Amino acid sequence: MVPFGTGTGLEGGVNAVQGGVCFDLSRMAAISELSLEDFSVAVEPGVTRKALNSHLRGTGLWFPVDPGADASLCGMAATGASGTNAVRYGTMRPNVLNLRVVLPDGSLLHTAGPGRQARKSAAGYDLTSLFVGSEGTLGFLTQATLRLHPLPEAVAAAVCSFPSVQAAVACTVQVLQAAVPVARIELLDEVMAGACSRYSRLELPEAATLFLELHGSQQGLAEQQQQAEELVRLHGGSIPAWARAQEEREQLWSARHSAWFAALALRPGCQGYSTDVCVPISRLPGVVVETQRDLRDSGLTGPMVGHVGDGNFHCILVFRPEDTDEAQRVHDFAERLGRRALAAGGTCTGEHGVGLGKRALLREELGPQGLDTMRRIKAALDPHHLMNPGKVL
Amino acid sequence: MVPFGTGTGLEGGVNAVQGGVCFDLSRMAAISELSLEDFSVAVEPGVTRKALNSHLRGTGLWFPVDPGADASLCGMAATGASGTNAVRYGTMRPNVLNLRVVLPDGSLLHTAGPGRQARKSAAGYDLTSLFVGSEGTLGFLTQATLRLHPLPEAVAAAVCSFPSVQAAVACTVQVLQAAVPVARIELLDEVMAGACSRYSRLELPEAATLFLELHGSQQGLAEQQQQAEELVRLHGGSIPAWARAQEEREQLWSARHSAWFAALALRPGCQGYSTDVCVPISRLPGVVVETQRDLRDSGLTGPMVGHVGDGNFHCILVFRPEDTDEAQRVHDFAERLGRRALAAGGTCTGEHGVGLGKRALLREELGPQGLDTMRRIKAALDPHHLMNPGKVL
Ligand SMILES: Cc1cc2nc3c(=O)[nH]c(=O)nc-3n(C[C@H](O)[C@H](O)[C@H](O)COP(=O)(O)OP(=O)(O)OC[C@H]3O[C@@H](n4cnc5c(N)ncnc54)[C@H](O)[C@@H]3O)c2cc1C
Ligand SMILES: Cc1cc2nc3c(=O)[nH]c(=O)nc-3n(C[C@H](O)[C@H](O)[C@H](O)COP(=O)(O)OP(=O)(O)OC[C@H]3O[C@@H](n4cnc5c(N)ncnc54)[C@H](O)[C@@H]3O)c2cc1C
Repeated sequence: MVPFGTGTGLEGGVNAVQGGVCFDLSRMAAISELSLEDFSVAVEPGVTRKALNSHLRGTGLWFPVDPGADASLCGMAATGASGTNAVRYGTMRPNVLNLRVVLPDGSLLHTAGPGRQARKSAAGYDLTSLFVGSEGTLGFLTQATLRLHPLPEAVAAAVCSFPSVQAAVACTVQVLQAAVPVARIELLDEVMAGACSRYSRLELPEAATLFLELHGSQQGLAEQQQQAEELVRLHGGSIPAWARAQEEREQLWSARHSAWFAALALRPGCQGYSTDVCVPISRLPGVVVETQRDLRDSGLTGPMVGHVGDGNFHCILVFRPEDTDEAQRVHDFAERLGRRALAAGGTCTGEHGVGLGKRALLREELGPQGLDTMRRIKAALDPHHLMNPGKVL
Repeated sequence: MVPFGTGTGLEGGVNAVQGGVCFDLSRMAAISELSLEDFSVAVEPGVTRKALNSHLRGTGLWFPVDPGADASLCGMAATGASGTNAVRYGTMRPNVLNLRVVLPDGSLLHTAGPGRQARKSAAGYDLTSLFVGSEGTLGFLTQATLRLHPLPEAVAAAVCSFPSVQAAVACTVQVLQAAVPVARIELLDEVMAGACSRYSRLELPEAATLFLELHGSQQGLAEQQQQAEELVRLHGGSIPAWARAQEEREQLWSARHSAWFAALALRPGCQGYSTDVCVPISRLPGVVVETQRDLRDSGLTGPMVGHVGDGNFHCILVFRPEDTDEAQRVHDFAERLGRRALAAGGTCTGEHGVGLGKRALLREELGPQGLDTMRRIKAALDPHHLMNPGKVL
């Protein structure tokens, strides 16, 4: 049994590799239990993040987790998704309060108990966090109770170019250390900045680039802008021209969110594959520089974009799958990158999940004891291995 | 096998009810892997929260989770502890990056993989969150890798009196809705305010009281203070006199942290028991008012203190255990309070855990399917039921 959300997952999670039945849950699309005082709402699998935010319009609240695609919120819970706002608002995990799950034997589980939506709890094992990121291998998520956030009073966004990726990362670390409550801080390498600039008709220099967004009160925002500007300048970055009007900001972020398509446009007719490592931020500059060298040495096109405040970055590899030699080089490169992240104390997947493709790396990441523990849990909750066989473990 | 941290747990978690061996891990006391760039550090079970913060002095970083007692950080992970700062910085769960665990069969598990400390990960099931809050029933936590936070540039604290508990809670909701990034917001009811005032020689009126703390930059703080003041005034609260000097703030918070002893001082020679429910914040005023009525009707002394920004509150019941009638009334009251919280969509324990005393309520909270799922996990990881028998499930 393979649960299907919106099919935007990047690791083959919905592929029925062993046959079986794929369940499209998209017609369960109720939004219920909206509470403005409790900052919470419940959604069924047919509700996407954009649909929820449209529904919330006018309430003063929003749901911030934003993968590049307009994915279903239950699918996002299933993969433990995150996105550009995670540095400030967290990933799916801290933003899911409860899950209604159909277990493999057909029984119904509420991970935090039926009807519960307390902001915190110490009542037994954290089943909610166990099902977040379980990628359809433990049961069907048929409703997610989510934590909402108040819309910021004022927002400012900007793009800054840096002399190098190292300088941009060093700037990010200082922004975090100075406790500037940055809402988004996204890194594009030279190649990606150029690709996005051409694709979205901006005029960005082909240089390491940070896309920044600040959320706050009118007055607080001015101070955040000033702090961010100082740190950008200190690291040789270009002085940010702040966009405050919604339209202007949306244009800017649509350029960032089009990175995938901008990358594909570098080699028309090719296919894309996105890597997804996450490392401790102190190791990020080194890992990025080595990865860029590896890309060059491998003769591959793989512009880089990253949720740099979390140490998470992607190379979008653009290649011709018919070219078996190139496809092999992509595969080898992705594996080396995963190992490089592991060697730096990181993970082979910050947000896309394990799916089909990362099972070998997962084993290296967790060690035999970690894998064995996960397998015991899988066997305990799905003893006949009915759910999404061949995935994750 | 019963793991022992510092023994400050409030639900009998370290009691060897079925005999066995109690393991005091306090001489494993290493602090290692401090990384100022990654905001992370690893601690063994002998390290308490105060010891860690002393160790961090001068680094610009701190660890914010602060139960009233100076508990061990591994014990805090084991119980899923929180405290006054959780509304801003989260509970233990989002602040633990990795755990080293000795499993019941003696093998060694690193919940996020050996040596890993990425800020986020989507690599398989979230074993870290599973072991946080497991109360010694799944294994020994022998090291916790924690997420640190930058010290705020400026801090201001204040105490405000309100005409009623409802007014204080309504004020809290608006503070949260206005996205004032309040660091601490603690409610004391009339009785507790009076008790703390006498115990700590402050001059608080015997009224519903909020203890507030704001963290920010110098300039940002002024704005937060102004916003908070407006909302306090709007709800009929007394105008806060802000304490900015460290000594003055510490005096204020030491009064709050002495609430347990202040409550005990209401009836010298008596014993205390702290309840610990957590409800959606919209239900808080109703639940608090009903609970106060119940206290009066039961003829019990139970001043109330709460992490009101999370909907979590405690009645500290002060009673004479030799008086079997009173002890029974305390027991019945605590059970009714738990049920009242469950009826309001909440939990029977926001932070103290289930231990011995809350097992019956846990069953009601989760329903049979939830309990069965937890039991399957327990059986999968501890098949011979060696760890902390008789607790939680
Ligand atoms: C252009 C682009 C940009 C992206 N950017 C990001 C990003 O920034 N961050 C990020 O995290 N991801 C990103 N993604 C990946 C993807 O959007 C996320 O993984 C998303 O969470 C998948 O949701 P979905 O509903 O499409 O799930 P699907 O693709 O349908 O399924 C994914 C997995 O979850 C399981 N699943 C789905 N629904 C359920 C359910 N109801 N119950 C149980 N299991 C279920 C499936 O079985 C499968 O294993 C991007 C994808 C694209 C195409
Ligand atoms: C005055 C006072 C105020 C308090 N205020 C708060 C508060 O505001 N918030 C809050 O959350 N709690 C509060 N507490 C409760 C208590 O401090 C917490 O529950 C704390 O987390 C317990 O830590 P400990 O090291 O003392 O654990 P212990 O009491 O030693 O053990 C508690 C449980 O955890 C298990 N355990 C302990 N160490 C380990 C380990 N290394 N590996 C595996 N299992 C382990 C034990 O087996 C037991 O089940 C308060 C207690 C007091 C006395």
